[in-house]
Amino acid sequence: MLGLGPMGRALAAALLAAGYSPTLWNRTPGRAPGLAERGARTAVSAAEAVAASPLVLLCVRDATAARAVLDAAGPALDGRTLVNLTSVSPEEARRNADLAAGYGAQVLSAAILSPTPTIGQPRGVIVCSGEEAVFRAHRGDLGALAGTVDHVGTDPGRAAAYDTALLDLFWTTAHGYLHALALARAEGLSAAEFAPYAHGLPRMLPALMDDWARRVDEGRHPGERATVASAAAGLAHVARTARGHGLDTGVLDAALALTERALAAGRGAEGVSALTETADRRDR
Amino acid sequence: MLGLGPMGRALAAALLAAGYSPTLWNRTPGRAPGLAERGARTAVSAAEAVAASPLVLLCVRDATAARAVLDAAGPALDGRTLVNLTSVSPEEARRNADLAAGYGAQVLSAAILSPTPTIGQPRGVIVCSGEEAVFRAHRGDLGALAGTVDHVGTDPGRAAAYDTALLDLFWTTAHGYLHALALARAEGLSAAEFAPYAHGLPRMLPALMDDWARRVDEGRHPGERATVASAAAGLAHVARTARGHGLDTGVLDAALALTERALAAGRGAEGVSALTETADRRDR
Repeated sequence: MLGLGPMGRALAAALLAAGYSPTLWNRTPGRAPGLAERGARTAVSAAEAVAASPLVLLCVRDATAARAVLDAAGPALDGRTLVNLTSVSPEEARRNADLAAGYGAQVLSAAILSPTPTIGQPRGVIVCSGEEAVFRAHRGDLGALAGTVDHVGTDPGRAAAYDTALLDLFWTTAHGYLHALALARAEGLSAAEFAPYAHGLPRMLPALMDDWARRVDEGRHPGERATVASAAAGLAHVARTARGHGLDTGVLDAALALTERALAAGRGAEGVSALTETADRRDR
Repeated sequence: MLGLGPMGRALAAALLAAGYSPTLWNRTPGRAPGLAERGARTAVSAAEAVAASPLVLLCVRDATAARAVLDAAGPALDGRTLVNLTSVSPEEARRNADLAAGYGAQVLSAAILSPTPTIGQPRGVIVCSGEEAVFRAHRGDLGALAGTVDHVGTDPGRAAAYDTALLDLFWTTAHGYLHALALARAEGLSAAEFAPYAHGLPRMLPALMDDWARRVDEGRHPGERATVASAAAGLAHVARTARGHGLDTGVLDAALALTERALAAGRGAEGVSALTETADRRDR
């Protein structure tokens, strides 16, 4: 296990809980308190850790840190299977997979799609891209890390593509909620008063997500309750109220600008899923 | 029942299903097919409809349309209870409540916080603001419209404040998801492949929402897994990938700009809930 940040430590703990005897390494030593007592060995170098096991997990801060570790391990990677769980862009995933393959490793480029506390739990979700035979050979081992471990394709960038699109959804939603709390407060509502009603959103999201996904794949966005025109009216109304309270309206204004571009393209009566086409600037 | 758009028709149908005999009116006639057969009467003017019942529900397109209907009904409102379910801003709600009170009505300014298909169902949610005695007198009648009918305060703008903040959350989240679908597609993933993993968001949202709400109310944002710095890194990474595919990045850029303002204010190590403070431009 290379990398002992919060996620790396959670992965190491899951391995220990499943009866494995991992060898741990971190660039800064002393990051494995409690893990050594539970049977983990620690290595003084990445190469030593890699040499200790046929299966090597890598989870560090970013793609640059991952490259540095791979270069440090170097030829020790020859004949190993590397599962790179570092959160990166699809392009970086492809580059780092090439780097590790160049050292002779078989590579799975993976992404952890659920938060740290889910690691080792049934609700944990990991997706892997790379050769399917390599995935199948280690599917059982990876099952120690998460309840759901899926193979999503051979392109090494594919797992990172899921990760990046989910981060897009997560951070935009987080901003929407935190901004809504600011707006509620400006209107004299406490967050505790508002939050219970906000729970209505996660209740309705799964069905909406599937419905909009179907429309996007079909490339057809028939009018429904939520049209592009209603999105524009709703966003304009919220932005006006927020601006009246002196709140930042950057996100709302940008969402409105995109929606108005869809209106200008004649999509007003279509369902809001049409905004996926407009988000792609090639849609004129 | 004044107003027979999709929501007004759903409200009228819920009244009929609960055994009421509503009198319906719409500016454009002929919008009540199926409702007359089920026992609803139709009025030729708003004043006639208002005169027919002690309890008057109003649900039209916007605040301006609501004012026009109230002025048309005029003195017929004297002694009636008006429940205004039109989606408006808090300021408009206050203004329209004053207008109706001027005609002698007792007013509840309400907001429907759940989608049209939930009307008349246990999962429907309506909040009302206005005099509590007026709410209590009609609480039973309003129960025909939604499973949850809450009184949220005497300020007529209060129900609209919930509505507006929820619209903020809803439309921002919708943009995040539809943009994520565009990003996934640019990476070669179908929406059907991506959507099942997106369901992880609604699973984690309720706990996050309550956690962040508590921090916002306490005005303390201790560092947690998701810090302001990690939000900035995540948004920058997603925006870079999206830009590389030629996608619109307006919403991501605006969210990143807000996050960077929080960083510049020294909030990098705080939890992301601190962004609620930064969304308020008075936070320097």
